[in-house]
Formats: sequence, structure tokens, C-alpha cells
Amino acid sequence: MSFAKLDAHLKKLEALSHAQSMLGVDEAVMMPDGGGEKRAEAMGSLAGLYHELASAPQVGEWLAAAEAEDLSSEQRTAIREQKRSYLNLTCLSSAFVEKQTQARIRSEQLWRQLRPEGDWTAFLPALENVIALAREEAALRADVLKLAPYDALIEQFDPGSRMAEITPVFAELKAVLTPFIPRALDAQAKRNAKHPPKPFAARFSIDRQKALGETMMKAVGFDFRHGRLDVSHHPFCGGVPTDVRMTTRYDESDFLSALMGVLHETGHGLYEQGLPKQWSHWSVGAARGMAVHESQSLFVEKQIGRNPAFWQWALPVVQQHLGPDALPGWSHADIMAHVHKVKPGLIRVDADEVTYPMHVILRYELEQDLIAGRMQPRHIPEAWDAKMMVYLGLSTKDNMKDGPMQDVHWPSGAFGYFPSYTLGALLAAQQADAIRRAHPAMDDDLRRGDVSAINAWRREHIWSKASSLSTPDLITAATGHPLSARPFIDHVMQRYGD
Amino acid sequence: MSFAKLDAHLKKLEALSHAQSMLGVDEAVMMPDGGGEKRAEAMGSLAGLYHELASAPQVGEWLAAAEAEDLSSEQRTAIREQKRSYLNLTCLSSAFVEKQTQARIRSEQLWRQLRPEGDWTAFLPALENVIALAREEAALRADVLKLAPYDALIEQFDPGSRMAEITPVFAELKAVLTPFIPRALDAQAKRNAKHPPKPFAARFSIDRQKALGETMMKAVGFDFRHGRLDVSHHPFCGGVPTDVRMTTRYDESDFLSALMGVLHETGHGLYEQGLPKQWSHWSVGAARGMAVHESQSLFVEKQIGRNPAFWQWALPVVQQHLGPDALPGWSHADIMAHVHKVKPGLIRVDADEVTYPMHVILRYELEQDLIAGRMQPRHIPEAWDAKMMVYLGLSTKDNMKDGPMQDVHWPSGAFGYFPSYTLGALLAAQQADAIRRAHPAMDDDLRRGDVSAINAWRREHIWSKASSLSTPDLITAATGHPLSARPFIDHVMQRYGD
Repeated sequence: MSFAKLDAHLKKLEALSHAQSMLGVDEAVMMPDGGGEKRAEAMGSLAGLYHELASAPQVGEWLAAAEAEDLSSEQRTAIREQKRSYLNLTCLSSAFVEKQTQARIRSEQLWRQLRPEGDWTAFLPALENVIALAREEAALRADVLKLAPYDALIEQFDPGSRMAEITPVFAELKAVLTPFIPRALDAQAKRNAKHPPKPFAARFSIDRQKALGETMMKAVGFDFRHGRLDVSHHPFCGGVPTDVRMTTRYDESDFLSALMGVLHETGHGLYEQGLPKQWSHWSVGAARGMAVHESQSLFVEKQIGRNPAFWQWALPVVQQHLGPDALPGWSHADIMAHVHKVKPGLIRVDADEVTYPMHVILRYELEQDLIAGRMQPRHIPEAWDAKMMVYLGLSTKDNMKDGPMQDVHWPSGAFGYFPSYTLGALLAAQQADAIRRAHPAMDDDLRRGDVSAINAWRREHIWSKASSLSTPDLITAATGHPLSARPFIDHVMQRYGD
Repeated sequence: MSFAKLDAHLKKLEALSHAQSMLGVDEAVMMPDGGGEKRAEAMGSLAGLYHELASAPQVGEWLAAAEAEDLSSEQRTAIREQKRSYLNLTCLSSAFVEKQTQARIRSEQLWRQLRPEGDWTAFLPALENVIALAREEAALRADVLKLAPYDALIEQFDPGSRMAEITPVFAELKAVLTPFIPRALDAQAKRNAKHPPKPFAARFSIDRQKALGETMMKAVGFDFRHGRLDVSHHPFCGGVPTDVRMTTRYDESDFLSALMGVLHETGHGLYEQGLPKQWSHWSVGAARGMAVHESQSLFVEKQIGRNPAFWQWALPVVQQHLGPDALPGWSHADIMAHVHKVKPGLIRVDADEVTYPMHVILRYELEQDLIAGRMQPRHIPEAWDAKMMVYLGLSTKDNMKDGPMQDVHWPSGAFGYFPSYTLGALLAAQQADAIRRAHPAMDDDLRRGDVSAINAWRREHIWSKASSLSTPDLITAATGHPLSARPFIDHVMQRYGD
């Protein structure tokens, strides 16, 4: 039976990807420098072996044959998603993938080297090459998938998400946020005048911060029997659903930065821990995509972790963990001034939740022009600067490092990924809105640090669904509505308005 | 060219075994409990994939074809060793290996469950099954390898080592140690009467012990750019040559137990770090076998780490790391009373270097009788007790837990492994003897904590040779003599005699 053959084959692939995930974690958390060269070699070989097994023609034959077999509706869905993965994996030729991989590696290495100086001129030829190949890739994928080229790129990261749905939502968001940002800044200035913010004055020891992070992880539902928290240079959530490895890094002068990072990664971790175990080796059992994944991390970070109700419970917990000298006599308003700080800036990863979407919309607009060939890479700096001026009133003229050279995505060839960040923020707000409708006591729960009802909803409507529905279908089924900017807009206006 | 094809194929296998090693380390050091089930599944799949690729008929064809190619003498040696591995890997049928693996797993699980109570009767049927299969395995291997059955088992662990060479050496050792052990105990009693030993009275914090262990590792030559020290329940040396992962466990009332364990594992680690990098994916580039590996760990533990000259340097280092309250006013003689303590006991892994060989000789003798069918498994307890009485004057009557049920080797089907431990001790002494002949200042070096000349000899004669010679040829080439008990006997008589 072909379904059974596929099942056995996918178990082998799962073992290889288990190894790849864990080696990745080990590399970031444990590996001494001298182990890097051989590790890179091993990772390259494992990736090759994985690709060889995953794209084998036999797999295609089994998929086709399985469709004619007597399957349950769950098994049918599994076959459908597996075909999607197989198609996305096999629609580029090996020769093209090899050429593209080399161009991406060269460009990313050059970017790492040139970014500190912001040397755009030296970097441009490598980027031009990567963008030319991304256009070619988009055309190849579009042809197989019967999609518009940029949609075909998005499809890798967010199955089912299309420009036709994203563009109007982003347009609404832009129309609202552009005038709202100055209002939020005014409101903040007034609050600060009335109640001057206290700076963080203590040293927050790493041991205490770690214990605090673990307490908060447990509080929002993380299962330490199936995961742990470590330290790495770039925080991430890795591992496998049965063993989720999260990392953070600590700043002894600012406990909030690690804590918010930990809450964010815990959101990713909860999604992984909540996936259905019996389908773990099938595509249908994996997390749905980057937008939904980001909605889970942003739900925990923004909808729970920056919620004023939650901080009624969290402030004493923080004070207890960090010790009596950490935040002496701080009130709820004192801590919220830090948790809700708004400050337009040039760097996307440092942005607050009000200004962040503008960074993403800027990239989304430029990416479409680049992939469609309406804009040439050499014109990126002026386009970037012009949009930054309109969206956030900031200029990146002659500042490539904090402008178009700030992100790794384009240098590494990841076009179609950026929208996920803001789609995630919108979906998180949309889910919080749906939960409040189903469970009006949500904020009362958070005031007691109780996430059980909230997580029960998320488990039922998001985590347990894994990849059984496309992103739009998943969201409509969960919240009763297709993707909308409205819940997010209401959320930021309520939280940051006057 | 077949040699090149083999080379590429072996790189893939190296990547898989890199993953297996590192997942093993992660499991012992980092993995939360809940990750175990899926990890076991992944490890099983990876082992299956490895075996499938390593035993593929193509590999046999490439090996045969490569012999006809124009190869350097180094490449010829590589092909010879690779053929040996391939033969050892493929001489059992898949059906036999599967049946044996199941029997071993069942027996080992049963042993873990029954050992605490020492329930021999309940365990015996599983052990009988494992031994019957070991006899069958020995016959199958003997047939392919043209060796005596027990030699064919030893060949897996120690290529080239044979009963014909081991038996007379062990006989000499037994003849000397049996009367020497009481003499060593007398000598110890006299020393203790003259200079009463001081007990360890302080608490030795784990942080300080870890820093001490790392200092000692560096002192004996461990390269922390290519390795690290962590904690696990059972100490081991794992990872890969470019990234050696060592573990220990700490006892806050006895720093010496972790320190000696760390030095022992560092010996294994130095061997791995010293292997020739360019052959890392070929059998010829791997460590020679268990006896030589154990000679490296015992060299560092016994020939360096328990050497009185070394302790002239080490005692102040220990005192500095453990703090002023740790060993206040301790003299060299005070610490040596602990480092050189002799105490006959029932448990092999707790034995000192004088009595340890008797534990191994006992097992070596019983194993030969078991594999040859001269003894039935049900007679093990009486034979064990009889030999223990003769060798160490201790009875294991009605004490199966500390008698024949103490080791994991037989329950897990590892027959032919035990001799390696004592061969390692003999080879370590034989190497130390050769080094002293080449470099008479060896002990003066150790008095200054300087291992550079000692390690230069070991690198040249042992580490860099990897598996290019059989165990006996390696030893003869390195020390000028075949395996001999004499250097070890001289060593213990000098160290523990009166």
C-alpha cells in the first residue's frame, strides 16, 4: 500500500530533520568554535541526503498511487499537503538550486562583511545577482503552481496567502497608522509629563533573569518536560515538537529585553508543543507557515506579555524574582511606561508594535516591484529613503547600514517572507479578539496569570489544526472572519491612543 | 574512479555518524525527559539508514575495484582497513542482526530492572538467550574471518588481538598479582600507621571542581577550541574528533572522584583530537580499537594523574582552585594516601589499579568457557564466586548484584570487550616505559606540569597512526616490543610495593 510506504519513508525523513534541527541548536548553544568547519560539512551532507530522499521520484509515484487507495478523510488531507510540499520541493531543477545556493551564500557572506560600513556599492553586484535569480525562481514556481510570480514566492512561507488578500489589508493599515503614529507619540509625551518614567537602575543578574524567564514560560503554558531554555547569540526557538529548544540572551542593565524575547519565543514553542503528535512526520502535522507561527509568538509577546491586565499579575512576580533592589516601589504605571514605549526608528527588529508594520509594508512594496522587474536593485536606496520619510519621518540617506542593508533576508534571497511578520501581528490581534468574544473574562484571567482558557482556545483552533487547512481557511475557521486589519487597529488604538 | 566514489560515499556516512554522536551527547547532557521517546525513534531510523548505506553491495564493488587502481601506499592502507570494516559489518545477515538486537535490548532492559534485587533466577533465561546468540555470532564471524570464535568477537573491538597473545600475558599478570595484592595492602597499612591519612573534610563546590577539572584538562593537553566539559549521569567522552564532548559528575564530598574521572576521559579525548583530520571519514582515520583507546585514558589517569611527580605540581593547583579551606596544610604524602589507595572489592568499576586486572581476568576466563560452550550460563554464579575467592579473597555467594550481575556487558551481548580494559592498562604502562627510555626527564617534566614532550611522543607514535596498523603492530612499532605484562608489573610494584 502506497500510503504505508510513504508513512515509512517520511519517518526516515523525520529522523534526518530531527538530527538537522538538533545539530543546529547544538551549534548555537554548545559547540566550541573549532567544531564549526566539520559541522558545516556534516550539515551540508545531511541536507543533500534529505533532499535526495525527499524529492525521490518514488515519492511522487506513491503520492499519486495513494490517492486511489481507500483512505480516511484525515489521510486524504495528509496526501494533499504532502503533494504540496513535494511540488514546492521539486519545482526547481537541481542545477538551478545549486546555482542559486552558491549565489545566496556568496551574497550573504559579502553582506556580513560590508554591512558594518554600509558599503552598498561593493554589495550591489551580489544583490543584483540574487535578485535576478529570485525573479527566475518566481517565474519557475509560478509556472508550476499556476500563481503570480510574487505569490509563488509567498506560497513557500505562507501556503494560500496571496497579494490579492494582503495588499488591501496592508493599505488599510498604512492609511490608519501613518496619522496614528504621531498621535500615539503625543499621548505618550503627555503620560510621561504627568508621570515621569523611571529608568532601570539596578543590575539584573543573569541567574535571576533566567529563573524569571522560566517562571514566565511556565505561566504562559510551556511544558518543560518537552523543552528547555538556553543562551545563544541570536535568540531562537528550535528543536522538535517533543523537545523544544528555546534560547535568549541577557542584558544585565535591562531585564525586559530578555523577558520579552523569551515570551516571544515561548509563543513559537507553544505552537510546536501543541501540534498533533501522530502526524509529526507528515507535512500536514507541521506548523502551518510563517504568518501563523509569528501570530503565535506575537500573541504571547503582545496580546499577553504587553497586556496591562497581565502586568497586574506579572509585576510582583518580576519583583520577587529579581530581588528587592530591582524595581523598588515601582507601580503598575511605572512598568507599563517601559512595556508600552513607542519610538519610531530606522531598525525593524528594534521597532515597537505601532511602528513595526510600516517597516514591513515598505519591504512588501519594494519586493513586489523588484520581483516584477518594475524597479532595479540600484534604485533601492532612494526608494527606501523616500518611503521611510513618508511612513516614519526618518531619512536613511547615506545610511545604508540602517537602511536597505539592515536585514539578512534579501542578501540571502528570502523574498516573500517579510509580509509574514505583520500578517502575524494582525492574526494575533484577530485571535485575541475571537477569544474575547468566546471568553469575555480573558483579561480577568490574565490579571490572575491564568492562561488555561486562552490556551484551550488556541490549542483547539490553531495548534491542533497544524497544516490541515490553508492559512486563510485556518483563520476564517478559527475567528469567523478572513484576515482583517481591524482587530489590530482597534488593539493599538486602544493601547497607544489617548 | 572507485576510490573517489568511496571517498564521497564515506563523507555521507561521516555526516550520519556525526549526527548520531552529537545526538547521543545531547541526550545525556541536555535533553529533557519528554524528548526521549521521539529521540529513540530518530536514533533507530538513523542507525538503519547508516547500516543501509554502509553495507550497500556497491561499497563492496568499489572496494574491489579500487584495489586495481593506481593508489598511493596511504590509500592502499585505507582500502585495506575499509575492507576490514565492511567485512565485519556485513558478515552477519540482516535477519540475524535483527533477532540479536531484539534479544539484547530485552535482556538489557530486564537486567536494569532485576539488578537492584540481584534476581539471577528471573534474569537467567534472557541471558541464556543472549549467550546462545553470541555463540552463533562468534561462529558466523569466525567462519568469514578465519579466526577462532572468541578471537572473532575480540576482533570487533581490538583488530589483531588474539587469545594466543593475551592468554600468556594475563597468566603472568595473575601469577604476579595474586601474591602481590596482600603485600601491597601490608605496605599500605604500614604507611598509614606511620602517617595516618587525613579524610576529606570540606565541601567542594561544583563550580570550583569544574574550574579545577578544566585547568587539569588544559594542563594535560586538551584543546578547548575543539571540545568541552559538561555534566551527565554516566561520565563519557563522546562527540567527534574536531569537537570532543566530555562529561563528568561531581561529588561535593570528594573532589578526587570527578578529577580522576575527568583525567581518564581527557585521555580518550586527546586520542580523538590527535587523529589525522584528512582521513576522518575513513576507517583508517579512526581510533585503533578499545584496548588502545583505554591505554590512552589510563595513561592520563594512571601514568600521569596518579604519578607522585605529577602531584608535586598538582597539589598546589588543586589547593588554589578549591580554596583555602579545602585541603588546609595538606602535604604531598597526605594527598598521595588518597591517590594511591588500594582496596580489594567486589565491583570492577570501583577497583584500584592493582586489583582491577583480577576482575578482568576473571571475566576473560569465563567468557572463553561460555563462548566455547564448556560452561553453561547457569553455572556462572558458582564459577564467579570461586574465582573471586582465589583472586581477591572475597565471596559473591548469594550476592548476584555485586557479582555476575554488576556489568552491562553480558546483558547487552558485548562478549570479547572485557580484555580491552586490562590490555589498556598494560599498554599504558608499556608506553610510559618507552617514553622514559626515549625521554628520561619524563618525571621531571611532570613535576613542573609539563606534558609537551610526553604528548609529542604519543602524538607521533599513537594518535597520528589512527588505524593504519593492527593493535599488535602499532604497539610493537611504538614501544619496540610486543604486548608485555612486564612494564605494568614493574609499575605497580614500584608504586604500591614496600
